[in-house]
Amino acid sequence: MDDAADSKKGKTVAELAEFLASPFTGDGEVVIESVSSIESAEAGALAFVETAKALDEAQACKASCVISSDTAAASRALPGVPAFISSAQPKLAFARAAALLHPVKRREPFVHPSALIAKTADIDLTVYIGPHVAIGEGTRIEAGTRIEAGVTIGDGVRVGMDCVLHPGVTLYDDVTIRDRVVLHAGVCIGADGFGYVRDTEQGREYHKFPQRGTVLIEDDVELGAHTCVDRAALGQTRIGRGTKIDNLVHVGHNCDIGERVIIAAQTGISGSVTIEDDVVIGGQVGFGDHIRVMSGAVIGSKAGVLPGKIVRPGVWWGIPVQPLDEYKRLNAHLRRVPEMRDEIKDLKRRLEQIEKNKGS
Amino acid sequence: MDDAADSKKGKTVAELAEFLASPFTGDGEVVIESVSSIESAEAGALAFVETAKALDEAQACKASCVISSDTAAASRALPGVPAFISSAQPKLAFARAAALLHPVKRREPFVHPSALIAKTADIDLTVYIGPHVAIGEGTRIEAGTRIEAGVTIGDGVRVGMDCVLHPGVTLYDDVTIRDRVVLHAGVCIGADGFGYVRDTEQGREYHKFPQRGTVLIEDDVELGAHTCVDRAALGQTRIGRGTKIDNLVHVGHNCDIGERVIIAAQTGISGSVTIEDDVVIGGQVGFGDHIRVMSGAVIGSKAGVLPGKIVRPGVWWGIPVQPLDEYKRLNAHLRRVPEMRDEIKDLKRRLEQIEKNKGS
Amino acid sequence: MDDAADSKKGKTVAELAEFLASPFTGDGEVVIESVSSIESAEAGALAFVETAKALDEAQACKASCVISSDTAAASRALPGVPAFISSAQPKLAFARAAALLHPVKRREPFVHPSALIAKTADIDLTVYIGPHVAIGEGTRIEAGTRIEAGVTIGDGVRVGMDCVLHPGVTLYDDVTIRDRVVLHAGVCIGADGFGYVRDTEQGREYHKFPQRGTVLIEDDVELGAHTCVDRAALGQTRIGRGTKIDNLVHVGHNCDIGERVIIAAQTGISGSVTIEDDVVIGGQVGFGDHIRVMSGAVIGSKAGVLPGKIVRPGVWWGIPVQPLDEYKRLNAHLRRVPEMRDEIKDLKRRLEQIEKNKGS
Repeated sequence: MDDAADSKKGKTVAELAEFLASPFTGDGEVVIESVSSIESAEAGALAFVETAKALDEAQACKASCVISSDTAAASRALPGVPAFISSAQPKLAFARAAALLHPVKRREPFVHPSALIAKTADIDLTVYIGPHVAIGEGTRIEAGTRIEAGVTIGDGVRVGMDCVLHPGVTLYDDVTIRDRVVLHAGVCIGADGFGYVRDTEQGREYHKFPQRGTVLIEDDVELGAHTCVDRAALGQTRIGRGTKIDNLVHVGHNCDIGERVIIAAQTGISGSVTIEDDVVIGGQVGFGDHIRVMSGAVIGSKAGVLPGKIVRPGVWWGIPVQPLDEYKRLNAHLRRVPEMRDEIKDLKRRLEQIEKNKGS
Repeated sequence: MDDAADSKKGKTVAELAEFLASPFTGDGEVVIESVSSIESAEAGALAFVETAKALDEAQACKASCVISSDTAAASRALPGVPAFISSAQPKLAFARAAALLHPVKRREPFVHPSALIAKTADIDLTVYIGPHVAIGEGTRIEAGTRIEAGVTIGDGVRVGMDCVLHPGVTLYDDVTIRDRVVLHAGVCIGADGFGYVRDTEQGREYHKFPQRGTVLIEDDVELGAHTCVDRAALGQTRIGRGTKIDNLVHVGHNCDIGERVIIAAQTGISGSVTIEDDVVIGGQVGFGDHIRVMSGAVIGSKAGVLPGKIVRPGVWWGIPVQPLDEYKRLNAHLRRVPEMRDEIKDLKRRLEQIEKNKGS
Repeated sequence: MDDAADSKKGKTVAELAEFLASPFTGDGEVVIESVSSIESAEAGALAFVETAKALDEAQACKASCVISSDTAAASRALPGVPAFISSAQPKLAFARAAALLHPVKRREPFVHPSALIAKTADIDLTVYIGPHVAIGEGTRIEAGTRIEAGVTIGDGVRVGMDCVLHPGVTLYDDVTIRDRVVLHAGVCIGADGFGYVRDTEQGREYHKFPQRGTVLIEDDVELGAHTCVDRAALGQTRIGRGTKIDNLVHVGHNCDIGERVIIAAQTGISGSVTIEDDVVIGGQVGFGDHIRVMSGAVIGSKAGVLPGKIVRPGVWWGIPVQPLDEYKRLNAHLRRVPEMRDEIKDLKRRLEQIEKNKGS
């Protein structure tokens, strides 16, 4: 990673504490140049501890500064560390400090001569465009955006400010990407949705249902490598502001994903699914079409949701999904089935004994 | 979408009805320029209703023409709509009309100067080849095919007529693609199958089993973004005519997929699986190797099929797959297990009472 | 496949037997030019039989040489075959012979003029670099490596000797690839791991946790098409020597995968999972984070492993994973639940009868 020159010099603990709006104790002039886990920290590194247990395990820490919610306890446990920053959310403060110390790689404004940009495309002068990029007619790329090698962008696309498109991203025609969006390698946005109509009278062939809608990716979205978001059939597929999606996820046509939604790797979402704000979804989850997931729902990895279902707030699990505590209770019962069979056998034997005695 | 110039003018209702070989009622001279859902239709739009329920919900429709199986009922329910087309399959007629009104984007015959085409490749004069394409030795591309930016095609490949290869598609050596095939962004055809032989005597290393076969994709197949079809070890992997496959699907070496098969997103098919014509497969289904799925089978999403299994006609569900009605019946029983435990407890108590009384 | 010129002439049976350090019977001067399955073998082909059953089914084999563990039985069963090679591991010997007869396609050292190589990159003179490749600053590519069209390699990357990078591979900055690694089309190595910290006090936004670690791919690894290996947050993600991974697999940040591990298609591995040497993992398996899978474990397809779990040696199955024999035993019990309900009903009826008689 090629950090900006000024960050190479690092920041003092006092500067970091000011940036985080958090108090520090110890030597504020110590210079911090990198971030590290508590175990592998060396001099010059910033680390963090989240829990008393983590503090217990961090005995011989060599970091130059540790962020903790209890700096008194931390300074007792780690006497060799010269400075501490206090934060009620140590991991968050650490992440924010890391972003300051190691800002995202920036590229000077540049258009590589091998890039092919349509005449009617409108590219801001501060944009970086790498080698082997292709950009179509009427497409607009806004200030500060970085487009890496081998990205292909169709006609009529809009990419907002300060986005990063990693190598091999494909944007089909008429897709809209707002600001500060990060698309990892191979992300594909706007391919045709999977919709066909079968001719049940002649030939039984499948005919393509029109896939003429668009896709909107809002501000601050990050999509993992090879994730696919299909265009709407008619209308719009949307990924809301601040939503983060992992690798190899499939988002079908006409889905409406809200803000600050988390979706882990390899989850698949069929067409016309609505996922409201702040939902959390594990990996390898499958959604049938026309589902509505309400804000406040958490869906465990590998769950399956049947078409048309409404998933209410709470924690959901299994195939098909059920509330996690119901799932656990039923499974505890099911594990007792072998024992129940033995009990039934015993009851039968005893009952037979009684019946025999009565008969005699 | 850059529609052909003549379609921009639209078609009259009479022209559409003639194209569909369907009768119309109302004003045949109304001009239709676009397709729309019934809810968001504006003047100039064609829409469709499939059911009486959809018709009930479509009260204030502004479309200029609606396709329906019951035009009398439709014209009563939607008095503001000036024309109706009658069809026994309204959604199919709508899809076919949409294809007429909005034909697939066409490109003028062209070879972009940045494309690298081997000397022995044979490219029809009507082909479009976009920027940053590479085409290998002895490869043949037939009339009307469109190859978008960043596609890589190996040696000895044949791509038929009127195909569309979207950005970033990779075809390995010796693959055959027939006519009117659509490959979405990132599709990969002909990568080595996953086959290794372990040396159980020395070093326990895995040695590659030869992956020297080919792939055949027949007419009218459409493959979704990032779907992978591996080459055969020895012999051929085949996707049959008219089959439609969604995004991120894995098709292993030596699979034989029949005609008009539907496979939803993220399904994975191990090596040497045979899927007969007209099978329908949901998303995230997993197939072990050497399975045969018979024509008439429907396999629900997230199902798992064990290696070597024969899946007969009918609807299948679960891991491992079982007939849907058996699955439902067993699950209904399983949900009663907690109640069964209570019943066993009650029986035990009553039996103890009887035994105690007898003893006394 | 464009085999090297000398292999085109083929090898005699005697030469193959010598290469395999295995005895042969019959005509050692027969020339072998290709490998084939036993069913479709023609003159000039080498085939193999692994079992007595396969030998029974191979009656009319036209191969010029067959590898078998029992050449006496094989020569009796296949009287038309002129030569036999004896090996205790016939499939392994066949795979090794195939690698000799059909060596991996080689390219002459070459850098395509459309490739863009940073000035500070260090490319061995024997490397092949295809069209539309981009290679970043300070990156080193070692002898004999072949980089196909459209590959993008970032800054500070090291690719070892005799690797093959198929079209469209992306290596992010600072990734290390050792020797003889094969990366199929679209493989993505070093994208950011999926790690965010939520601000629970202000705005509830997700902030990116630093993803500043690296990836190490050791010798003789092969990764299938579109497989993604994320960089570590802090530290290193590693794939060990001789490990083979199928298509569309997700390996999260900070995973440590050992040597000679097999992972089938579409499996997903969350962050900080350790998989020890020689583990075998089926397709579509899901791993939560911080799992440890011990050497000697085999995990069946579609299994799910809960976060933090230690998976001991043995065969594992289901969601969540349990030992295969326990899984089978419990499922056999569960299939008896409908019958158990009938038995309970019967017991209840008989008990009521007794109670009534007593009461009377």
